Amino acid sequence: MRRILLRVAYDGTAYHGWQEQDNGDTVEGQLKRALKELTGEETELIGGSRTDSGVHALDNVCVFDTNSQIPPGRFCLALNTRLPEDIRVNYSTEVEADFHPRHRDTLKTYEYHIYNARIQDPKKRLYSYFTYYELDVEAMKEAASLFVGEHDFSAFCAAGAQVDSFVRKIYSCEVFVNQSDGAGLESRDIIIRITGNGFLYNMVRIIAGTLLEVGRGAMKPSDIPKIIASKDRIKAGPTAPACGLTLMRYIFVSD
Amino acid sequence: MRRILLRVAYDGTAYHGWQEQDNGDTVEGQLKRALKELTGEETELIGGSRTDSGVHALDNVCVFDTNSQIPPGRFCLALNTRLPEDIRVNYSTEVEADFHPRHRDTLKTYEYHIYNARIQDPKKRLYSYFTYYELDVEAMKEAASLFVGEHDFSAFCAAGAQVDSFVRKIYSCEVFVNQSDGAGLESRDIIIRITGNGFLYNMVRIIAGTLLEVGRGAMKPSDIPKIIASKDRIKAGPTAPACGLTLMRYIFVSD
Repeated sequence: MRRILLRVAYDGTAYHGWQEQDNGDTVEGQLKRALKELTGEETELIGGSRTDSGVHALDNVCVFDTNSQIPPGRFCLALNTRLPEDIRVNYSTEVEADFHPRHRDTLKTYEYHIYNARIQDPKKRLYSYFTYYELDVEAMKEAASLFVGEHDFSAFCAAGAQVDSFVRKIYSCEVFVNQSDGAGLESRDIIIRITGNGFLYNMVRIIAGTLLEVGRGAMKPSDIPKIIASKDRIKAGPTAPACGLTLMRYIFVSD
Repeated sequence: MRRILLRVAYDGTAYHGWQEQDNGDTVEGQLKRALKELTGEETELIGGSRTDSGVHALDNVCVFDTNSQIPPGRFCLALNTRLPEDIRVNYSTEVEADFHPRHRDTLKTYEYHIYNARIQDPKKRLYSYFTYYELDVEAMKEAASLFVGEHDFSAFCAAGAQVDSFVRKIYSCEVFVNQSDGAGLESRDIIIRITGNGFLYNMVRIIAGTLLEVGRGAMKPSDIPKIIASKDRIKAGPTAPACGLTLMRYIFVSD
């Protein structure tokens, strides 16, 4: 019996999130189906980040155990031929028998993409949150920097999350702009990129929703430390829509 | 009776191209349906570029005649509320009664996007051509520059096109690279951007297919002038897939 780690990218548009469920197609469900086709085995997957419905990933991870004799590096191509086009395995390797992706020290990087223009660009609609509000990006940058550090992020966690601790460490939180090419209109892609040792349920989307409030002037950068200190979800901004979010990197620090 | 010009963006993935047809959903068909809902009139549309199935646009144009009293600038929002999300009207204005978008001097800009990586990124699959070949971008840049000028582009036109002349003027043809974020893999977006006074049927996709042949070493930059001079379609590269192509700008030179 060997334990195999996969690095997986997906377009979350068509899926009810990562985690297998009775109703609806999921990324985990597709991977399990493809693994069964390949190995004949019913496998359990242990996922790294159980992304929500509609959230994308360039680099999520999972592990599974197998008795098959397929060389570890071969799972990548062998699974891709059995997966739909909107899921790709980027990498496969053998890991220790007790390797658990959620019990390791990790660095995770997420990006939240905002398309800011007068009118939506249809090619961006699946992978960005669209808003025509004029956004003050300088204020968003300043606010973003105030998330950095080790904090209790209870105010940035969806209600009902069952975790031992709400403390997470944010290593960087940056906002940057790509001028984009919106048919002669003033238009731009605003990207929030955040790296931390872990994220609570909906945390990145609530941070994005809060930075959007700062961008349109409904909150000030100086409100961020107060919201964090309040530990009160109601003080933070709304949860930004799933389509703008992509899990970009899932790094094991001991790697 | 007034003539209204629209500037239209669309994600071509779900459409059988611009032009209305009996079988299949088209961008023109959707616009005519939305116009009928709005004005009650059956209208004819005159399109600028009749893009192929699967090709995208950020800025195509069309005109139509109407007796409605809707202010010209209002068609934009009024149509967007009646169109699917993958089609957006960016702009509407009144033009002269005899304004015909294909009988004007124009500058059209297209982009062809290539995603070059070891493994596909699912989020790029609808809007880029994916290839894992190692591409020599410097050779592609050199080859691209050799399309600039006024030439008979018969060699870069799909067979059976009925046109008076195969001569078109290319003002610029550039290849540039965006390093992209492919899950720690070596990956990049290669963009071909071409501006001309007009393009023959499939011309940009055949130029892209030829530049891809140069990129992977099957053709040399110095072959380009010979292929143009041959006027022989068979000498050029294959027609690159539709999904990589977007009509970026449609400018009336007299504007």
